[in-house]
Amino acid sequence: MSKPSIPQGTRDFSPEVVRKRQYMLNLLKGIFEQYGFQPLETPAMENLVTLTGKYGEEGDKLIFKILNNGLHELKDAKREKVAEDWNKMLEKPFSSPAITERALRYDLTIPFARFVVMNQNELAFPFRRYQMQPVWRADRPQRGRYREFWQCDADVVGSTSLINEAELLCIYQAAFHAMKLPQVTIKINSRKLLAGLAEVSGNAALMMDITIALDKLDKIGWDGVAKELEQRGISADGISSIREIISVTGTNEEQLAALEAIMSGSAIGLQGIEELRKTLAYHQSLVNTAWDSTIEVDISLARGLNYYTGVIVEVTTSAVSMGSIGGGGRYDDLTGLFGLKGLSGVGVSFGIDRIYDVLEELQLFPAALSVATQVMIVNFGGENEAYALRALQPLRQAGVTAEIYPDAAKFDKQMKYANKRNISYVLIAGDDERAANKYSLKNFTTGEQQLLSLEECMAHISSQG
Amino acid sequence: MSKPSIPQGTRDFSPEVVRKRQYMLNLLKGIFEQYGFQPLETPAMENLVTLTGKYGEEGDKLIFKILNNGLHELKDAKREKVAEDWNKMLEKPFSSPAITERALRYDLTIPFARFVVMNQNELAFPFRRYQMQPVWRADRPQRGRYREFWQCDADVVGSTSLINEAELLCIYQAAFHAMKLPQVTIKINSRKLLAGLAEVSGNAALMMDITIALDKLDKIGWDGVAKELEQRGISADGISSIREIISVTGTNEEQLAALEAIMSGSAIGLQGIEELRKTLAYHQSLVNTAWDSTIEVDISLARGLNYYTGVIVEVTTSAVSMGSIGGGGRYDDLTGLFGLKGLSGVGVSFGIDRIYDVLEELQLFPAALSVATQVMIVNFGGENEAYALRALQPLRQAGVTAEIYPDAAKFDKQMKYANKRNISYVLIAGDDERAANKYSLKNFTTGEQQLLSLEECMAHISSQG
Repeated sequence: MSKPSIPQGTRDFSPEVVRKRQYMLNLLKGIFEQYGFQPLETPAMENLVTLTGKYGEEGDKLIFKILNNGLHELKDAKREKVAEDWNKMLEKPFSSPAITERALRYDLTIPFARFVVMNQNELAFPFRRYQMQPVWRADRPQRGRYREFWQCDADVVGSTSLINEAELLCIYQAAFHAMKLPQVTIKINSRKLLAGLAEVSGNAALMMDITIALDKLDKIGWDGVAKELEQRGISADGISSIREIISVTGTNEEQLAALEAIMSGSAIGLQGIEELRKTLAYHQSLVNTAWDSTIEVDISLARGLNYYTGVIVEVTTSAVSMGSIGGGGRYDDLTGLFGLKGLSGVGVSFGIDRIYDVLEELQLFPAALSVATQVMIVNFGGENEAYALRALQPLRQAGVTAEIYPDAAKFDKQMKYANKRNISYVLIAGDDERAANKYSLKNFTTGEQQLLSLEECMAHISSQG
Repeated sequence: MSKPSIPQGTRDFSPEVVRKRQYMLNLLKGIFEQYGFQPLETPAMENLVTLTGKYGEEGDKLIFKILNNGLHELKDAKREKVAEDWNKMLEKPFSSPAITERALRYDLTIPFARFVVMNQNELAFPFRRYQMQPVWRADRPQRGRYREFWQCDADVVGSTSLINEAELLCIYQAAFHAMKLPQVTIKINSRKLLAGLAEVSGNAALMMDITIALDKLDKIGWDGVAKELEQRGISADGISSIREIISVTGTNEEQLAALEAIMSGSAIGLQGIEELRKTLAYHQSLVNTAWDSTIEVDISLARGLNYYTGVIVEVTTSAVSMGSIGGGGRYDDLTGLFGLKGLSGVGVSFGIDRIYDVLEELQLFPAALSVATQVMIVNFGGENEAYALRALQPLRQAGVTAEIYPDAAKFDKQMKYANKRNISYVLIAGDDERAANKYSLKNFTTGEQQLLSLEECMAHISSQG
């Protein structure tokens, strides 16, 4: 028998990790609910046809497809169809419903759009939903990149109000404040400003090319971007105009004022400036002064190849070396993919695998999470076992997490277990204790031991927290 | 574009359903943690080799297999291997790692065993874990049977103490008590008693046949079972002896006493009786008198075709017509499948899809779960919008779940939304309210409306809960 293993790029979450993840997810859940967002869960499997063509050619290759069951039971024409389609699948990227009808969820956005379209008559719009579930991608696994990973999204569909953008900024700030994450910056821009930038640089038709090149600014620097812009057909004049625009500095209002002057000839650029001003004004009326993260207009923020059409945001922390820990934006026609037109949406995503790593590196998880069981009762067997058992349920009823070592094993073995489990207290119920109708309560950190009645034990544990 | 849909046998969980499911899962989580059980999560995908051969021939057919990616990029020998294996897959049940290396989790028990074996050096034994995750089976979907459904298991491995069995009985009782589920019965038996029954009926070698036949007693009645026993080669004498044994009645102790007399010639049968007595005695020392479910010895309880070797349990409620809502037992060598011998385990499972249906049918979900947002602020636009926004964050900081209707839509439209969302209060911030620096708070259930300061609004909402 070979040693068991798990698939490359997947992880088991041990109890300690699950507790830390639950802390993070519950914190986010609490904030989402406070802001009126509602939980949604969709199946791990979607019909393959729901997913294909939504993530670009590269994305399609990374979808995990599920083999139909019972293929060996097929007869005649169906069997021939399967044999024929199989040959096509060996030739080129090709999906045959006769072979794979279903696939694993690739993100949370497409299933959300699919859900909204299927349930459009039952839902109350604007529909605010949050969703925290795993997704699967057949990417090459590497440090920080998994084949099974979690996404955590909050979206509003059915409202064009910029109050939604402002509320989502508040959700980011409230969440990172609650996690005590330092040095958080939320960059904000608008795809309309990028369209304006393309327009005033004389390359209106090349807006996506400019966006894709600008998206690499952090990674390859301005010289790299300039080279890519040139390759993508932007003139030298255009490139220098783009450089001038993305070099605008100052406070948010100073940047917007400067851009307003530069973009005076671009209707869409001016609209983008107006939307950013409104979003920031709404945000100003909702911001909590205790939040210490900052919102910064950044005209070079691009958010890559995707479906955004309005305000876009991206979150980073300078406290550790890590890419973005969140991002999002407005998309005008997501549900249009499934036939429901004219429903505008805006959403943000928390990169919870990365946020986990940041909280871990900065030791920001509450220490209490690592204490699973407060009290372990030592088991000496026989009549002492019966005496020990008498303490178990009263402790639990008093709100103390308690367990008894189930076997009358050697004292050392039981202590080793308590140590490995990071248990706070050990309750000893031996002959002497039983004779005195008391229990010895040993603090596992300090080593201090006291002979106490059960009530005194409970009071002591509760007072120590 | 065809209408979007989800795969047969899968479900979207709408916000209301997610809330009810979370209530149930959090309640169970709280109890598991109280008893010292620790959370574990394993990946949705396992290596196919981990799963095959563990669930019987029928089970193997129901495993969802994931197609390897990049098949069309294979060349030469690898490609020929895939073509060859594909032909085999069309002929018979056959798994080729060249085509499918991975599969979806089929239950939580095998991944748990796999995890324990992989992490045996880091874990503290006895290891108590709970796990609540979806599993996937390519079963024919029907009412109450899904292709994606959730399991919820609690197991202890590395201890043979019957205290574990007693604690798991307490967990069942505490959980169903907390859910207020009435008329719950936990049937208890031992595989050793079934072995004893086979022995004293003169059919020791046919113990599994007898178990499989007895398992159908509820469905096909004694006559059906007798017929099946005959088909499985049990003599008429044997059948009448089995009938006599399973007809034993009385209190738990009366039944055990009667069985002790009947099984005096079967060492294993007597051992089963002894273990049941000890389990019940331990349970007696831990039981909470408030729990109203009952524990009943039932010698006909069999728990079908599986790996149990000791005490077995099954939970039903007579309050609704529904099969078992939980079950479990002791298994002596689960991790042996993966090369780690001699680790005894015992576990129980909660059938949470069925429990959900029962709670729903009996209307036992707390009413508060259906109120997601307590207050919606009406949006009249312009200066009134700015005035409305001033109320939003103070409400949330006071612990009130609040949202503003993001667009200055028609009043009726906003009221319709609040109604559909089951929102408790509506806060009206119009010209009059703004002039008075107050807000009109409308109770959406009673229709009652009051002009109040923001502080008074918060006090009123908090006092109404």
